[in-house]
Amino acid sequence: MLVARLGEEALLEKMRDLFEVQAPSVAVGIGDDAAVIEPPDAKSQEVWTTDLMAEGIHFKTAWQTSRQLGRKSLAVNLSDIASMGASPRHALLSIACNPKTRVDFVIGICDGIKELATESGVTIIGGDTSASDEGMVISITVGGWVPAGEATLRNGARVGDRICVTGYVGCAAAGLRLVDAGVSETWPQLHHAFISPTARISAGIAAREAGVTAMTDLSDGLASDLKHICDQSQVGAVVAFEDLLVHPELRQAAVANGWDLEDLVLTGGEDYELLFTLPPAKHDELSRAIEDAAGVPVTQIGEIVSRTAGLHITGADGSSRHFPPHGFEHFADNG
Amino acid sequence: MLVARLGEEALLEKMRDLFEVQAPSVAVGIGDDAAVIEPPDAKSQEVWTTDLMAEGIHFKTAWQTSRQLGRKSLAVNLSDIASMGASPRHALLSIACNPKTRVDFVIGICDGIKELATESGVTIIGGDTSASDEGMVISITVGGWVPAGEATLRNGARVGDRICVTGYVGCAAAGLRLVDAGVSETWPQLHHAFISPTARISAGIAAREAGVTAMTDLSDGLASDLKHICDQSQVGAVVAFEDLLVHPELRQAAVANGWDLEDLVLTGGEDYELLFTLPPAKHDELSRAIEDAAGVPVTQIGEIVSRTAGLHITGADGSSRHFPPHGFEHFADNG
Repeated sequence: MLVARLGEEALLEKMRDLFEVQAPSVAVGIGDDAAVIEPPDAKSQEVWTTDLMAEGIHFKTAWQTSRQLGRKSLAVNLSDIASMGASPRHALLSIACNPKTRVDFVIGICDGIKELATESGVTIIGGDTSASDEGMVISITVGGWVPAGEATLRNGARVGDRICVTGYVGCAAAGLRLVDAGVSETWPQLHHAFISPTARISAGIAAREAGVTAMTDLSDGLASDLKHICDQSQVGAVVAFEDLLVHPELRQAAVANGWDLEDLVLTGGEDYELLFTLPPAKHDELSRAIEDAAGVPVTQIGEIVSRTAGLHITGADGSSRHFPPHGFEHFADNG
Repeated sequence: MLVARLGEEALLEKMRDLFEVQAPSVAVGIGDDAAVIEPPDAKSQEVWTTDLMAEGIHFKTAWQTSRQLGRKSLAVNLSDIASMGASPRHALLSIACNPKTRVDFVIGICDGIKELATESGVTIIGGDTSASDEGMVISITVGGWVPAGEATLRNGARVGDRICVTGYVGCAAAGLRLVDAGVSETWPQLHHAFISPTARISAGIAAREAGVTAMTDLSDGLASDLKHICDQSQVGAVVAFEDLLVHPELRQAAVANGWDLEDLVLTGGEDYELLFTLPPAKHDELSRAIEDAAGVPVTQIGEIVSRTAGLHITGADGSSRHFPPHGFEHFADNG
């Protein structure tokens, strides 16, 4: 059935039924003009973030199931909460879709969102639906809690700190190339990395508890995201390319497709892994604590240096060059 | 300059500069992965809402200045907060726009948002920008505070309560017709009602303090919005059409254009006035208190009756008929 036929009120009702959940912190959830939530106690702060996904820009409907699309649209928000060391709790969801969109597809998106929300302890507390003249837009806002004053910001990296990253880098960008070319079956892990990224919520909390000095998530690409930490911490960084954990499938796919592996790993976005800095003395102990708590590998990839030393990447041959300037750019002239 | 030329990072920086505000409740604002806010004390709750405006559906760029568009996109959210009797405090803003959009236009939207945010005591704590393949989408989420347990919900109306509304009803829907036909100069108040609606924040707070039993804002149209209160309160309603305050310009424009005035007043949306119910004993006293506090007229338009009596509108001739079924419908087959 088309959205046009079902009608907005009926679609909202379907979504309301789907999202009806009782959580102790939600005094008023969906169904009124706005949601009312109660902070658990005065010792915690709230963390809120929003991410918008537009059809044709962030996704095409043929790339994934509606459920996968829903999960990803929430996951990219959860990743921002994770990068603050916070626990996600509440979300608001807006969907604009063409009246000719199939209701199944919209409900599938909601199913995926609900599935991941439930897995992550998140309650949907409100939202909005709208028609759109063309493609679909999914806009989600997520709020979470963190002990007061303990959110892991981007501005705390100090000279000598070790730079660490969870999981693999570059796989999602490779997955996008494969999905877009319609040849992703050969490399299922790359496909999965792009279509179904995991927000590192447990790793983020463990990293905060371990005392990381700065943290962000890999959404724009390693070079861009590390630059954000360096700019806000007023430091530089040296990253050793050979220390980066390169997924075997990524290595194979790069050879098979003639891709520049280094470029893909440094500038490819949407991995939603966590990038953080740790004091050198405690590095080994803390890295292991994060690995154990979150069940994800943590790799040391470099070191924070002085601001004047800049941002460099070193090759296996001892060569050193400046970081590539940019990650993914939505508004780029050349698409 | 086109957005494509300026680039996403530079656009974000412009927006960040524009929105840089210090508020005591914002521990971390724009510039990190997410925002951190601190509830003032354990005696208050937070209220969050989100509204999305899509080009071609909610607005056309030629209809208003970018600043007006920005103000309205925030105002529609503030209105939801107002309808809860809450004070708006924090907002997150996402904008998706075609790369060929003029930067001036996007910044104008942000200027308008900032202007109204400042007037309303709201701090922008985060956001997202994205390209869109076609039209622009503005998605805003607003959070506010209300004393714990005192949010004015839709479910508290009781039989015998008086039904009241702030300001004029139907003007915004008339304004839309005029703007769309390009003939709005003749009726400037109707044009203004549609392009520059006012969120009734002070009236909402005054209404909560006065002890209204239920409240919502007029976004879908009087019939639809009153039906929401009746459904959630399990009551019926009788509205006397002649008690509704009809703006003189609306009366003139209806005659001049051959519009059905009653239909426009009952089903026209987007007035963003407040609709609420009050216990009969205190009606006069409380209505005046709200008028005095908010500087907006409050009109009694009807009475809450039993659920079984249904929803009726009475005419000057004593005739009575059922409420029209629907307000504005985005997904309607016939637009």
